[in-house]
Amino acid sequence: MYRIGRYTVAFESNPKILSSAASVGKSEGEGPLAQEYDYINKNDGIGCGTWEHAEAALVKHAVQLALDKAKINPQTVDIVFAGDLLNQCTASTFGFRDFQIPLAGLFGACSTFALALYMAAASVDACSAEIAIAEASSHFCSAEKQFRFPLEYGGQRTLTAQRTVTGAGAAVIGKKETGVIIKKGIIGRITDYGIKDMSNMGAAMAPAAAATINAFLKDTDSNPTDYDMILTGDLGFIGSDLLIELMREEYSYDISQVHADCGKMIFYRKKQDVHAGGSGCGCSAAVVCTKIMHMLEQRKIKKVLFAGTGALMSPLTTCQGDSIPCIAHAVLLENEGDKNE
Amino acid sequence: MYRIGRYTVAFESNPKILSSAASVGKSEGEGPLAQEYDYINKNDGIGCGTWEHAEAALVKHAVQLALDKAKINPQTVDIVFAGDLLNQCTASTFGFRDFQIPLAGLFGACSTFALALYMAAASVDACSAEIAIAEASSHFCSAEKQFRFPLEYGGQRTLTAQRTVTGAGAAVIGKKETGVIIKKGIIGRITDYGIKDMSNMGAAMAPAAAATINAFLKDTDSNPTDYDMILTGDLGFIGSDLLIELMREEYSYDISQVHADCGKMIFYRKKQDVHAGGSGCGCSAAVVCTKIMHMLEQRKIKKVLFAGTGALMSPLTTCQGDSIPCIAHAVLLENEGDKNE
Repeated sequence: MYRIGRYTVAFESNPKILSSAASVGKSEGEGPLAQEYDYINKNDGIGCGTWEHAEAALVKHAVQLALDKAKINPQTVDIVFAGDLLNQCTASTFGFRDFQIPLAGLFGACSTFALALYMAAASVDACSAEIAIAEASSHFCSAEKQFRFPLEYGGQRTLTAQRTVTGAGAAVIGKKETGVIIKKGIIGRITDYGIKDMSNMGAAMAPAAAATINAFLKDTDSNPTDYDMILTGDLGFIGSDLLIELMREEYSYDISQVHADCGKMIFYRKKQDVHAGGSGCGCSAAVVCTKIMHMLEQRKIKKVLFAGTGALMSPLTTCQGDSIPCIAHAVLLENEGDKNE
Repeated sequence: MYRIGRYTVAFESNPKILSSAASVGKSEGEGPLAQEYDYINKNDGIGCGTWEHAEAALVKHAVQLALDKAKINPQTVDIVFAGDLLNQCTASTFGFRDFQIPLAGLFGACSTFALALYMAAASVDACSAEIAIAEASSHFCSAEKQFRFPLEYGGQRTLTAQRTVTGAGAAVIGKKETGVIIKKGIIGRITDYGIKDMSNMGAAMAPAAAATINAFLKDTDSNPTDYDMILTGDLGFIGSDLLIELMREEYSYDISQVHADCGKMIFYRKKQDVHAGGSGCGCSAAVVCTKIMHMLEQRKIKKVLFAGTGALMSPLTTCQGDSIPCIAHAVLLENEGDKNE
């Protein structure tokens, strides 16, 4: 591992994503990526008695599916990096409880999956792990209940609000000859433009995404067009437009041709009435572990800068009048193909 | 970095604790370690309008004090690993908001400081960071409010309950010739013996501590007496006794001669009416960053295995009847002295 510029790190030994999988709920299974997921549950309860247990069950499913694909026994995994949105990250804890794998808990709100990929790649690169797992999850019902209103209340969401994704994504990281490499990574700094509206996360998070993408481009002396895709976690429709504008106005980069956002990809905006798009740790985890990985594996795209974005407030800080501190962590995913071909 | 046995990792380049500091509240400042702390606030509000802001202020103080001691400008820090007990880890987020340092958020409940030391040492060892910070915090009032009862309610705590420490501890990790080395580390697995009593964390966490300490001793082929101290985070008086018993009964190790616990050290048990001792992420962070570091620096002790212990439940999982999954992460702290002397 070595540093490039001020903030970026290169993973020298080319740690690779050996396998990935996503388990999702009903709405996601009716969305544009329906064909991509490994497991769709037609009932968001996932056969559990509470929404929190349902989210933990999605975690378990996604991890087991990813391990099965790579033919890896959980007993041989050296470390897991995982997190979620629930208070005290209990979806991850209860999801991993039966696996008996060393667990390093992360918190980065919706940036968690990018942070987990960074940490898993760093562990494999530094040989502190042969096999590492990156995982993140969210659940619409457990999140609504915790962050907004009880579902029974039938509250109307504002048009700037995003819909929390019901889903978990897991990636198994290790070393092999070919495949999708986690080539570089960058840990973000807190960015806070003073937004206080918990129903407009896209606006709050866009400046953090812009700061991290700018730092990465500067550190690596590259341009947006050097990437097939600059993918953000879950800025949604409003945040995505703001990001393009911020990149142009503040940092003089035009990312409009290569920018995509998991929160825009995961639902049919109008048909599914999701307002500003999808959000939640599970959003980018599910999209990256399926659609993006499939495109990279098939080399339809070869180089994706994936920046996960997180809004680091709590309902309490919002009640206390605080603005929303945000963060974005990014990893460069690349499939160089078989060089011998 | 290389692995020793199944779970333990050795940090080859001997990453060192360049400086450390702790900021604490009133009760801690009246405890047995009063002379050790860098900053004691006589009023737990720390001049802030809310307990949550007070906790964030302690974070800021501790980090700034640690940086000042090492004469390091925050702008040159490469990464921070930090976490706390508040929902969505907002004490860390708001505490670090103004520093503009790349922030990797952790969640490990009261094991967070040990996890942060592991991650910071791993980053420095792998050269992904020259300077890293490990930090953790808790606050009695923000924790009581969130996990137990409103303070105004004047609830009586059971005798098995521990008192959450008001404090933050920060350590700056980097490379230098001599000093306290983070020599080895181990990430724990979730251990759950079915304890459901949120007022008896010591009993819930002791099996996790025992599992991690046993794995470390086995991996490194060492015995308890090879260490000057086997220090646990915050098992308190009840958990500490249980740990000694578990180590003897389940794993055939006698740690009674070398075992100490931060939760037992931080308060006068009877005079301060703290029942089973101290707890909270800030407990081990404040004790390790002051008392333990001072003893290591003066070589009164040379080799400390520090196992941070965390109870990974939330008030909601407890209400839903779940047992308490626990975890323990550990690092080996060692001062080899000046070998040229």
